[in-house]
Amino acid sequence: MSDIAAYIRQAAENAKAAFYELAAADTRSKNAALLHMAEGLLQQQDAILAANAEDMAAAREKNLDAPMLDRLLLTEKTVQGMAEGLRQIAALPDPVGEMDEFRTQPSGIQLGKMRMPLGVIGIIYESRPNVTIDAAALCLKSGNACLLRGGSEAIRSNKAIAAVIYAGLRAAGLPEHAVHLITETDRAGVGAMLQLPELIDVIIPRGGKGLVARISAEARVPVIKHLDGVCHVYVDSDADADMALKIAFNAKTGRYGACNSMETLLVHQDRAAELLPRFQAAYAEKEVELRGCARTQALLGEAVVPATEEDWSAEYLGPVLAVKVVADMDEAIAHINHYGSHHTDSIVTADYARAQQFLRRVDSASVMVNASTRFADGFEYGLGAEIGISTDKIHVRGPVGLQGLTSQKWVVFGHGEVRV
Amino acid sequence: MSDIAAYIRQAAENAKAAFYELAAADTRSKNAALLHMAEGLLQQQDAILAANAEDMAAAREKNLDAPMLDRLLLTEKTVQGMAEGLRQIAALPDPVGEMDEFRTQPSGIQLGKMRMPLGVIGIIYESRPNVTIDAAALCLKSGNACLLRGGSEAIRSNKAIAAVIYAGLRAAGLPEHAVHLITETDRAGVGAMLQLPELIDVIIPRGGKGLVARISAEARVPVIKHLDGVCHVYVDSDADADMALKIAFNAKTGRYGACNSMETLLVHQDRAAELLPRFQAAYAEKEVELRGCARTQALLGEAVVPATEEDWSAEYLGPVLAVKVVADMDEAIAHINHYGSHHTDSIVTADYARAQQFLRRVDSASVMVNASTRFADGFEYGLGAEIGISTDKIHVRGPVGLQGLTSQKWVVFGHGEVRV
Repeated sequence: MSDIAAYIRQAAENAKAAFYELAAADTRSKNAALLHMAEGLLQQQDAILAANAEDMAAAREKNLDAPMLDRLLLTEKTVQGMAEGLRQIAALPDPVGEMDEFRTQPSGIQLGKMRMPLGVIGIIYESRPNVTIDAAALCLKSGNACLLRGGSEAIRSNKAIAAVIYAGLRAAGLPEHAVHLITETDRAGVGAMLQLPELIDVIIPRGGKGLVARISAEARVPVIKHLDGVCHVYVDSDADADMALKIAFNAKTGRYGACNSMETLLVHQDRAAELLPRFQAAYAEKEVELRGCARTQALLGEAVVPATEEDWSAEYLGPVLAVKVVADMDEAIAHINHYGSHHTDSIVTADYARAQQFLRRVDSASVMVNASTRFADGFEYGLGAEIGISTDKIHVRGPVGLQGLTSQKWVVFGHGEVRV
Repeated sequence: MSDIAAYIRQAAENAKAAFYELAAADTRSKNAALLHMAEGLLQQQDAILAANAEDMAAAREKNLDAPMLDRLLLTEKTVQGMAEGLRQIAALPDPVGEMDEFRTQPSGIQLGKMRMPLGVIGIIYESRPNVTIDAAALCLKSGNACLLRGGSEAIRSNKAIAAVIYAGLRAAGLPEHAVHLITETDRAGVGAMLQLPELIDVIIPRGGKGLVARISAEARVPVIKHLDGVCHVYVDSDADADMALKIAFNAKTGRYGACNSMETLLVHQDRAAELLPRFQAAYAEKEVELRGCARTQALLGEAVVPATEEDWSAEYLGPVLAVKVVADMDEAIAHINHYGSHHTDSIVTADYARAQQFLRRVDSASVMVNASTRFADGFEYGLGAEIGISTDKIHVRGPVGLQGLTSQKWVVFGHGEVRV
């Protein structure tokens, strides 16, 4: 075994042992650790910012691009935000031990489902130091041990933050190995994590589509993943015009880089002539490029770029929008299920039956009526915080909060029953 | 692409298209299809038994062993049991569309979780024709399309059963490709199924540990699996002696080949001298071989085989039992979490606090107090039927019924809200 593989295995073994303690830890101790960490971040703010300044200097020397530098940068305000995030997670109800579906069977046994942590969670992420604290806090509160493998460019910042995390665990009497920052940032370490199903219970990759796809393809450990956000708004024949405009505008232009932003607008053919020019005028103010189907082009003229087959499944993450006129809701739903990424899709309609049908038949993690796709978010859903947004079908769909980091085991209360 | 890979891809594409219809199908149609199939099995009983007789003859010629022949064999009684199983699944509530956790957020949006099918499920199983009908029925009721890849020795029986399934789908107006029996039983077909994450949403392997482990290692599609059942009964210091004996006897000898049978008995040191001789006498009547730790041997003498390290994680599936004397419940829990398979474990105790602790700290799909491990079963839990028992941590633990074949998406009811 290579040194790095041995290091990862040892870290995972320690985390597994810590998990068994943490799974039984009381809520009070977990919250105390989170509040200690919040205090620690503020007290160690200078040290954290100094470490981050070194990371930033090294990153500039390596000519990292502006968005990467932006994600790497910590400021007083972001550190305070991290501390506030910890306090919010401490204030959330503890999902561990919750009981559900309690019932008595004819045999006499009583049973129900008890919510429990998953075990050891491996988080693989890019050079975003804030993920270090968010991921540690969500895993801790949900009773999971975690291995944090952040991008190498953030290693100094991550180490400074990890020191605060470890101190918080110690202060609350929780096992120190409950959170482990992988400090060997050799790429082989990621590969080693993916090959330990007996020690690591789930891997959550956070990053670009390429990274996530590669990890999913290689992993022998189950993966909870976010691939991409090709989100749609469908404007139905019975849509309120102003509402449709407001939602379509917000869903595209609210924040271009967000995974819950709209990438394709679908408009019912009966409303296209009336609405598309209004949409076009609104998007023009924000210099959003439109790529349209033939009917869209016929209505809006040469300012609209012809959409190619690739446009229907493109995640632009920028001021570009694909536009398609559809014959009816059936075509819209078929388009979304075929070209979309099963992330978030919304219908604008005043029709009750079609609203119900759309909610049922669109196979996405979030399906909406008369709301902007931008609402697909842990905070907006009331989950308090999220470790990511799942585009998977099993285990958890959409924003992954504390509950998504747990599953349910069966507990049986007997009175000496045996099976005949 | 090889012919078999092309065949599998085509089948999966057809199933995906059928899934989108089936996901929106009403409960009445699904139940009608199930009841048609129940009728069809009885009407086609002669044809099915004739096909099975051919399979049996071929299997005998290939010198398959007795347990395999036993699993392959269909009789009038088993066909009637299959029909009865269909009627029971028709009578179960439809999980699809169930809403949960409905709430209103400060933004004005209302949201909740809607239970939905997973999509296309690939079932890979051995030569057990009854699985063909069970799997088809559970997938259908839960709104999933399925690809059924049964063992080649059962292909004639499976084809006869599939004809009944297809006729039932047609009669109820449901898409015929909702269930597809893979008739090309070349091994490469299984490999092809494992490489289609864009078309197949989950793979459920049913079979021996070797098969399941191989499929899990190779699959790029998420897998819901049952690996093995190394189940424990821990007899606590405060156990009622008669209850402990009754449970330990039932858990071992009820049915040796069942995955929920006890494989290791753990006894608190304060009760070992009193209880172990009674256990030994009871097991002796059934000729159960005991393999014990040193303390067990010291108490029970030379009739007990010394247990090796391998015995603590062995799934005997036969009249053999590992026995260990433990210092206390902490040692018992640590032993179970380390050597067990996270399947089903039970404590016998009269102590309230330890019962609670055991339920919380044992990391298994089913954890029991004062009940036989043999209860870990879909019927005994009131799920109506099961497609298997999961030893995984994510998505679903323990018996997998209709609910385990679904997950929850978010549905958002807005009134024109946009995110600021």
